[in-house]
Amino acid sequence: MTNPGCSVAVIGLGIMGGPMAVNLVKAGYDVIGYNRSVAKMQALVERGGRAASTIAEAVWRADIVVTVLPDSPDVEAVAEGQDGLFERAKSGTLWIDCSTIRPDVSRRLASAAHARGIRAIDAPVSGGEPGAIEGTLSIMVGGEAADFDAAKPVLEAIGSTIVHVGPSGAGQTVKAANQLLVAGIMELVAEALVFVDAHGVDSDAAIRVLSGGLAGNRILERKAPSMVARVYEPGFRVDLHHKDLGILIAAAREAGVAIPLGALSAQLMGALRAQGYGDLDHSALHLLVETLSGRRPA
Amino acid sequence: MTNPGCSVAVIGLGIMGGPMAVNLVKAGYDVIGYNRSVAKMQALVERGGRAASTIAEAVWRADIVVTVLPDSPDVEAVAEGQDGLFERAKSGTLWIDCSTIRPDVSRRLASAAHARGIRAIDAPVSGGEPGAIEGTLSIMVGGEAADFDAAKPVLEAIGSTIVHVGPSGAGQTVKAANQLLVAGIMELVAEALVFVDAHGVDSDAAIRVLSGGLAGNRILERKAPSMVARVYEPGFRVDLHHKDLGILIAAAREAGVAIPLGALSAQLMGALRAQGYGDLDHSALHLLVETLSGRRPA
Amino acid sequence: MTNPGCSVAVIGLGIMGGPMAVNLVKAGYDVIGYNRSVAKMQALVERGGRAASTIAEAVWRADIVVTVLPDSPDVEAVAEGQDGLFERAKSGTLWIDCSTIRPDVSRRLASAAHARGIRAIDAPVSGGEPGAIEGTLSIMVGGEAADFDAAKPVLEAIGSTIVHVGPSGAGQTVKAANQLLVAGIMELVAEALVFVDAHGVDSDAAIRVLSGGLAGNRILERKAPSMVARVYEPGFRVDLHHKDLGILIAAAREAGVAIPLGALSAQLMGALRAQGYGDLDHSALHLLVETLSGRRPA
Amino acid sequence: MTNPGCSVAVIGLGIMGGPMAVNLVKAGYDVIGYNRSVAKMQALVERGGRAASTIAEAVWRADIVVTVLPDSPDVEAVAEGQDGLFERAKSGTLWIDCSTIRPDVSRRLASAAHARGIRAIDAPVSGGEPGAIEGTLSIMVGGEAADFDAAKPVLEAIGSTIVHVGPSGAGQTVKAANQLLVAGIMELVAEALVFVDAHGVDSDAAIRVLSGGLAGNRILERKAPSMVARVYEPGFRVDLHHKDLGILIAAAREAGVAIPLGALSAQLMGALRAQGYGDLDHSALHLLVETLSGRRPA
Repeated sequence: MTNPGCSVAVIGLGIMGGPMAVNLVKAGYDVIGYNRSVAKMQALVERGGRAASTIAEAVWRADIVVTVLPDSPDVEAVAEGQDGLFERAKSGTLWIDCSTIRPDVSRRLASAAHARGIRAIDAPVSGGEPGAIEGTLSIMVGGEAADFDAAKPVLEAIGSTIVHVGPSGAGQTVKAANQLLVAGIMELVAEALVFVDAHGVDSDAAIRVLSGGLAGNRILERKAPSMVARVYEPGFRVDLHHKDLGILIAAAREAGVAIPLGALSAQLMGALRAQGYGDLDHSALHLLVETLSGRRPA
Repeated sequence: MTNPGCSVAVIGLGIMGGPMAVNLVKAGYDVIGYNRSVAKMQALVERGGRAASTIAEAVWRADIVVTVLPDSPDVEAVAEGQDGLFERAKSGTLWIDCSTIRPDVSRRLASAAHARGIRAIDAPVSGGEPGAIEGTLSIMVGGEAADFDAAKPVLEAIGSTIVHVGPSGAGQTVKAANQLLVAGIMELVAEALVFVDAHGVDSDAAIRVLSGGLAGNRILERKAPSMVARVYEPGFRVDLHHKDLGILIAAAREAGVAIPLGALSAQLMGALRAQGYGDLDHSALHLLVETLSGRRPA
Repeated sequence: MTNPGCSVAVIGLGIMGGPMAVNLVKAGYDVIGYNRSVAKMQALVERGGRAASTIAEAVWRADIVVTVLPDSPDVEAVAEGQDGLFERAKSGTLWIDCSTIRPDVSRRLASAAHARGIRAIDAPVSGGEPGAIEGTLSIMVGGEAADFDAAKPVLEAIGSTIVHVGPSGAGQTVKAANQLLVAGIMELVAEALVFVDAHGVDSDAAIRVLSGGLAGNRILERKAPSMVARVYEPGFRVDLHHKDLGILIAAAREAGVAIPLGALSAQLMGALRAQGYGDLDHSALHLLVETLSGRRPA
Repeated sequence: MTNPGCSVAVIGLGIMGGPMAVNLVKAGYDVIGYNRSVAKMQALVERGGRAASTIAEAVWRADIVVTVLPDSPDVEAVAEGQDGLFERAKSGTLWIDCSTIRPDVSRRLASAAHARGIRAIDAPVSGGEPGAIEGTLSIMVGGEAADFDAAKPVLEAIGSTIVHVGPSGAGQTVKAANQLLVAGIMELVAEALVFVDAHGVDSDAAIRVLSGGLAGNRILERKAPSMVARVYEPGFRVDLHHKDLGILIAAAREAGVAIPLGALSAQLMGALRAQGYGDLDHSALHLLVETLSGRRPA
């Protein structure tokens, strides 16, 4: 059923969902997309997919439904809303939720899905827009082993690192850890860049040599050059990362885990948003460090 | 002069300096080592180097002197002490200081060296014991371009990423930024691991999938598995990283750069040391996060 | 109606509610108390109050109902539960909620109360057990001015600083700010005490002189001596302060306010709890700083 | 000798030293002042003191020398400089250093003074300009008991809380703890004020009620109203508090004491300075929290 040729509905064709749907087309799936804005669906149609005018239309004949939505309430609306996934998907449908949402909501929805004969896994992704386009996303999957196995061919069309990390909700838990690491490393890279710049050291040389040692990391490779150029175009918006860090802080609190650097990073991301930078890329933490240090060019 | 065959003195044959000296032997240099403990010199002799009984003996006929010492006062003692480098090295000697020390001390010593006809560059390294053994260190070099060029063949025998980052002291500045990144990422990885573990997620699966996305970094690859095993063997000692973060905090303060995550990381590293863990590997920040979270096994 | 002589039900006779009820008796009110544990009610009866065997019995003839409960769900249960406040209080009853709960829950309950003809104000208190016993609590009141005026005689029996800070929920907002200050100052005092102790300075002399200058604060006066004696008896439990800081973090996030010191204090309070110290007084932050600094006596 | 009537030299007639010298005049001492700017000396002369044209002239006939200077190098220059205190004061002179400087420098200078027959105590003060004017400073004294006793009448003319906290340097250690508390509480009060303001709560009402409970502190009383008015006039300059926090961080590091809130406060104070606000009052941390939270009025 999950072999190429089977029908996959993709709900949410944004920065991430759009290219993911295209990669599913390329892999031979019959892809039917739904998005509130028609322009996004048109782009999919041009690449060989089909467009649905309602969620119901997208899901009712699909073997597999993939959702790529911004936040918990969006996923709840698609799943539980009138004429939504739960009402209209056929029994036995495999629902792959690639959204980043609260682990407890994810668990609750998976359980509700199962009660209606729908199989459900949480499969949030990391890798950003480039990873979505190139099909090299890292995908952290929570759910039952059989459902993970069934989803694997689809996931392999959109990602290159695909790991079953535990039962339902576990994918979201690991994604929260991912967002902790990404926010914290982003801030550290920003601090390091402003530090060397303030000391008159050439940033490009510093990035090159820092990348070669134990400090080497993907943000230094991919984001540091645009920080140096003071270009903070999404990519991944501050608003969304702020939302994810809210999930993290709550989940760490619930589990009694001390995350001092995570909590401070969340404050800084929240400050960016409060200052009106919610639509910038999360690498705008560099802007914040420069502002704090009195080094913003006029 | 810097071609294989020329004579290189190596002062300091510890965890880093020892294997670096061996790599210089392998590259064809005539290597004469000095270390306070004789056992370390014996190891070098067994690998084809020679041993000197005093610093003076090591440096007086060397074309190049490499120092790999723990802290600023150690380098000052070797350079400026009686019968030391400045007194005994011949004019035109190229001094490559691979120690991690204060940028201002580095600049002062380079200037004093030049006044005595000795050429000097600061060339601190990153990559840890494995990098020193494999000859894949990342080396950040401060000094004049001609001296960097002259040192390059020697540096290529011990490292794989070698970058001239600016004038005298700039290598130390970039190394301070490196230690900021390493300490902060180490703590973030520790927080992420304790977080997923507390939620019952398999750590190995989490490490694998986190490594594939934007959160991917070298500490996750190299240090996370030993954190999970709760093995914190150096590697790089907490005491030394604590020393380096002291340099960082002072240098950030001097330049007026805000490093909130760096400052908090320094507090946590200092806490590890205060608790008597100064001799553990810096990955023991994982132990600290587990302690803070009430999750240390008895 | 709110003059002495009128009937006041007090729901919740714990560390705070117990002595508050006694002070209402002393002020001449007819006080009927309810608590799940009978022993607490017995203590009130011995001081001149009456005991109710159910919430319904406590509230049905009361002119005023005062609730002093641990958390939002407790208040919701008393207000909205079967045979609870909303069902059984007579129309026109004035409900004074002295619990510390989420501002949004407080607003929702006040609105629901009004819909049933019950007047409601939020009136959380600060001052701890001594303030409750001495009747010197600081009370931050949210609600309508007329209800505040009506409640004032009752509040004056239990507190000495009574301020109407705004509409419904505003009392809880100010209480969250209070808990931010208390947690943060507690941690700062702990850091200062461990710092002077580590330098061999006499703690008592330091407390005396620090109290005289700009650093002077009530925690230094009331809590520092017991910190020095390493006695951390509640008082106010870590578990409750942790709960309050959860309210704070969420409310700051909602309003887009950066509270870096507040967020870090919340992590430290959470760490205390995770380590099993939830039942100690919040001054146990001193224990945490000593642990972090390797200075806990065996 | 220390009775009114004896001669007291005061070196440093700034915001603090000026009114302190006037209070010594009022107490009956023969006061001779020295300051680099003549205008400051003129003000003292108008209040009944005398002016010296050099340090030597001020100290050579004085029984007691009081220094009130900005930083360690200033005190070193006055004490050890040519024609300075050590060279020109008569044997048996009692030197009271009211400056806030590094404890190790303070100890070294006291020891050097003793070697020259000059008795020395460190006596840094807290209480700000109002405390200096009103003679209600809090004074933390390090040194020998006999010297403390000898200095007491002089100190009682300028302060109201005078405590001998330990041997030479101990006054400076306690002053560092004082500056930790003041910086941290200042930031917490700023966070609390911005928090309640963002929630639409009246700041004045909040300040009043917060002052009545466990959160009550002197900064809330004295600095919160000017924060609300967004007036940040010194008072005590950010630059000086930044200097003091540098002393604190170094001293905590030396003693192995974890001060996470202190370290974060130091970063924020440093950020204020880096942004060009070094000449504002330290209560400008409120400006920083408003900026971070996107709430600065244009």
